[in-house]
Amino acid sequence: MMNIDVCLSPELLHLYNLKNKIVVVVDILRATSCMVTAFANEVESITPVASVDECKFLQSQGYMAAAERDACKIDGFDLDNSPFSYLNSEIKNKKIAVTTTNGTLAITKSITAEQVIIGSFLNIKAVAKYIKEQQLNVLIVCAGWKGKINIEDTIFAGALAEELSDSFVFDDDSTLIAHNLFMTNKDNLFKFLTLSSHVKRLQRLNLDKDILFCLQRDIYNVVPILIGNELFCSVKSKMHMA
Amino acid sequence: MMNIDVCLSPELLHLYNLKNKIVVVVDILRATSCMVTAFANEVESITPVASVDECKFLQSQGYMAAAERDACKIDGFDLDNSPFSYLNSEIKNKKIAVTTTNGTLAITKSITAEQVIIGSFLNIKAVAKYIKEQQLNVLIVCAGWKGKINIEDTIFAGALAEELSDSFVFDDDSTLIAHNLFMTNKDNLFKFLTLSSHVKRLQRLNLDKDILFCLQRDIYNVVPILIGNELFCSVKSKMHMA
Repeated sequence: MMNIDVCLSPELLHLYNLKNKIVVVVDILRATSCMVTAFANEVESITPVASVDECKFLQSQGYMAAAERDACKIDGFDLDNSPFSYLNSEIKNKKIAVTTTNGTLAITKSITAEQVIIGSFLNIKAVAKYIKEQQLNVLIVCAGWKGKINIEDTIFAGALAEELSDSFVFDDDSTLIAHNLFMTNKDNLFKFLTLSSHVKRLQRLNLDKDILFCLQRDIYNVVPILIGNELFCSVKSKMHMA
Repeated sequence: MMNIDVCLSPELLHLYNLKNKIVVVVDILRATSCMVTAFANEVESITPVASVDECKFLQSQGYMAAAERDACKIDGFDLDNSPFSYLNSEIKNKKIAVTTTNGTLAITKSITAEQVIIGSFLNIKAVAKYIKEQQLNVLIVCAGWKGKINIEDTIFAGALAEELSDSFVFDDDSTLIAHNLFMTNKDNLFKFLTLSSHVKRLQRLNLDKDILFCLQRDIYNVVPILIGNELFCSVKSKMHMA
C-alpha cells in the first residue's frame, strides 16, 4: 500500500524526501481555498510567486495580480486573498499571478516533488480521487503561519488522511497527530477553529464569511496541479458537485 | 496572566523568542525521563553535550558517561538511555556527561532562555509547581525525533499545559493542538502511544518496560535546572511522592 505523510510546516520540509511523491499543498485560510475557487470559476492558470515585486512585474505583462500580506490586501492589485473575489466571471480564461504570506512559499518549496497539487476542504474529495489514481506516495505540506504550525491546515491534513485511509497507510507521528485532531473535532470544525490564532486574526478583520466559505466540503470538482511554475486545472467541472 | 507556548520541534525554535522565558525541555522517550530519574537518585550534576567525542572527553576527566544514538547504547560508555540504568546507587553524588539523539540538542539550543528546566511525566507536578512560582512566560520545547515532531513529546506538552491551565493562558495553535491530543487520549496514553514511530522503534528493541516506566506520573519531586552548561537539581526529595 502507498503511504501518506504530513509535513506540518514549510520550515520542516527539508526533513522530507520529495522524490517520487505527490505533494498536496494546503493553506486553508485562505490561499489554496482561493486557488480552488478560481479554477472552479475557470481561470486559465495561476502563477505563485514569492514576492510582491514579482507579482507586480507579471501584472505589467498582462496577468491579473493577487497579493496578500498578513491577511490584508495590497494597494494596486486586482485581487485579494478572499475566495469571494474569485466567484467572479471576470477571471474566466485569465492568467493570475499570486503572492501570499504562507501558501505560495509552500508551493515553491515543494517544486522538486514528482507532482504538486492544491488541496482545500472545497475540493477534498476531488483531491482524494485524483491521488488514488496515481501510484505515488503522498506528502501533505501545510503552509502554516510564518513557519509556525496552524490548526486549520493540520486539521485538513487529518481530514485528507481519513479520506485516503481505505487505500493508503499512515504511521508517521505528524500524520497521526493531524488525524487525531480531525477525528476528535470533525463534528464541530468551526467551533474548534475559532480557537486558532489565524481565525482570530481574520475575525478581527471581519472575515468570518471567508472562514465559513473555506470550511465548505466538496463544493468543487477541480484539482489544481503545478506544471512548470504555473498551476493549471487537471480536473474540471463547471457544475458544483451534488 | 502568564502565557504558555509550545515549540513542537527544535527545528522550529528560531521562530520563538526565548528572552525572559522559562523553557521546559521534553524528551519523554527517554532522555529527560532519564535525567529526572538520575536526580531522584541523587546524581550531583548532568552535563548535556552535543557529540559522542565530547562525552568521551568528559569521561576521561572523571565524569560517568552516558550516550545513545538511534535508541542504542554505545560501547565504552558507563550508562545508556534507559531510566533503569539510573535507578542505581552508584550514580549518587556523581557527575554525568550525556549525549543523546534528540534531547541534548534541544537543551543546548534553548540556552539563551532565562531558565531551562527538564520535564517528564515522572516529575510533571513538580515542574508545574516550580513554574507557578516563577513570574515568567513558558515555552515547552519538544525534542522530537531528528527534527520531526513526535507524539510522546507533543502529548506531554499538552499534559503540562493542562496542569498549568488554572494560572496560565494558551492560545497559540501548537499549544492548542498538543492540548487537544492530550485531552482526547489521556485515559489511555499507552495505547495511543503504541501508534507512535519511536515507541515501535523501542518495542523492536524490547524496551517496553522503559516506555511504561517513562509514562508513570508524578513519582519524583525533582526539577532539573540548567546552570551554565550543567544541570543541577533545584527541587529535591529522597522520597517518592505519595
